[in-house]
Amino acid sequence: MKNITIGIDIGGTNTVIGVVDQNGMIIDKKNLLTKNYPLLDSFITALHDTIEDLIQKNNLFIKAIGIGAPDANYYRGTIEHAPNLAWKGIVPLCDLLKKFYSIPVVITNDANAAALGEMVYGGAKNMKHFALITLGTGLGSGIVVDGNMVYGATGFAGELGHTIIEYNGRDCGCGRKGCLECYVSATGICRTVSELLGKRKNASKLRSISYENLDSSIIASAANDGDKIALEAFTISAKHLAFSLVNLIALLSPEAIFISGGLAGAGDVFFKPLRQYVEENIEILFKNSVKIIPSEIDGKDAAILGASALAWKEIE
Amino acid sequence: MKNITIGIDIGGTNTVIGVVDQNGMIIDKKNLLTKNYPLLDSFITALHDTIEDLIQKNNLFIKAIGIGAPDANYYRGTIEHAPNLAWKGIVPLCDLLKKFYSIPVVITNDANAAALGEMVYGGAKNMKHFALITLGTGLGSGIVVDGNMVYGATGFAGELGHTIIEYNGRDCGCGRKGCLECYVSATGICRTVSELLGKRKNASKLRSISYENLDSSIIASAANDGDKIALEAFTISAKHLAFSLVNLIALLSPEAIFISGGLAGAGDVFFKPLRQYVEENIEILFKNSVKIIPSEIDGKDAAILGASALAWKEIE
Repeated sequence: MKNITIGIDIGGTNTVIGVVDQNGMIIDKKNLLTKNYPLLDSFITALHDTIEDLIQKNNLFIKAIGIGAPDANYYRGTIEHAPNLAWKGIVPLCDLLKKFYSIPVVITNDANAAALGEMVYGGAKNMKHFALITLGTGLGSGIVVDGNMVYGATGFAGELGHTIIEYNGRDCGCGRKGCLECYVSATGICRTVSELLGKRKNASKLRSISYENLDSSIIASAANDGDKIALEAFTISAKHLAFSLVNLIALLSPEAIFISGGLAGAGDVFFKPLRQYVEENIEILFKNSVKIIPSEIDGKDAAILGASALAWKEIE
Repeated sequence: MKNITIGIDIGGTNTVIGVVDQNGMIIDKKNLLTKNYPLLDSFITALHDTIEDLIQKNNLFIKAIGIGAPDANYYRGTIEHAPNLAWKGIVPLCDLLKKFYSIPVVITNDANAAALGEMVYGGAKNMKHFALITLGTGLGSGIVVDGNMVYGATGFAGELGHTIIEYNGRDCGCGRKGCLECYVSATGICRTVSELLGKRKNASKLRSISYENLDSSIIASAANDGDKIALEAFTISAKHLAFSLVNLIALLSPEAIFISGGLAGAGDVFFKPLRQYVEENIEILFKNSVKIIPSEIDGKDAAILGASALAWKEIE
């Protein structure tokens, strides 16, 4: 029987359950449509059944279960008030799964899980100090100090996306104004394009697309075709992120900052100005001490790898 | 023979050598005038002689030596390019002292030492996650995560004073523009007063004082007498610091943030708006999770206590 962990990625649409060995090999995986289980009890039953199927089919010995989910709290083993999930309030997910398994069951938010995935399987394997930033619909981040995930006093540390970069700036989903994720994320870059379409006179293929139909991959493709508005939008996003990274570096002095998710996939139109602004504005003490690089485990299995990495770290 | 550590605080003017027991009792201390020793060798000799005097006089067993100094690097045991000290370049202070003592000899910067002092002897005794901010001529900070000082990959982590809060803002001594310490420090509040004297029409006793003669204690005294310009300067400093703290909290979720140094001594005129702006702007996840309080070991012996705390932590 092979020693494995189960990595579970819970999203608003899909939940993916993966069987992962210590080398990051995904031995098997299964999908659940999260939306089909608006009642928590039925979701837990389906999750348990799926895990049992995977175990019996593959003749496995589970060492631990790791879960990545939005608004998850590592200390309490809960998902708390997640706006994109049907289960409201505080969901004691780990306790509910522990009824079936007498092994460690741990949870953390998606970005923390991604950072752990980078540490266990990706580019941060030998690093003690790094951060990982996920640029999806929002901006998530996971911070590792001295080889350990930073959860802080509340378990909610690592909210780089909700650091305020502009006083009285853009409205944020968190109820405040000017948070970094309003500028640097798939949504943020659409907002920037919309502002630029008003501000600039340049011709742009983005002028024919409604705000509702705009997305970051359209902007990335336009930028890579030389569209001036799209290129400026990436430069502005890069500049905002660069200033936040320069400040993060001053506080925590990481060896590397990994970037994953949609905007990172745009390549040079994003990374080139990002590295340039960091280089120009970093405090001299930290010059040449930090790599700003794409995640090595970015892609569709990153979330399962991250969740399973959390499980491996727990039994370490 | 009593077990003690030696705590050494090296400043541009004075070096204080203290004998400290595990309860933070300062058994004895001596002073050296740092400026009398422009040659490093003569300083080391004087330091060694002073330590020997203290040991023999008090019949002590030294467990470790801790040093707080500007621009110190914990990993390398060095002081590096300190503008306020006579010894230029990289000073391998720990190695030089280890020639005389086969015990741990460790160094860190003043603000980190102060944070360790708070943890070992002060208000952070049972805390795993906190930050300490020193508001002196500049703004220093020490960050503790999971009970350990954050040094980062380079050993220079904790530079909250050099996080950029205003793009193209005030000139900073670090060669960049808009760093927090240009706004929130003894110097920063003088700069704010000077700007306000131009901007406002209010009568103010500060109008009779030249920029060169202005200092933060004069401003604090004016504020406590109800001077409108001085009060507004404290409110502006508090607001700038509050936004940086709100962002620090989002990243690291500390239990407490301790404030020490001159501006903190101004009392309510600073702490009241500081707490109010933090309360108004903190992300909801962290509401009521963080105390913003004065350091409990602030005062003239804080630096020696901090340095000795570093020594106790090292042998822990």
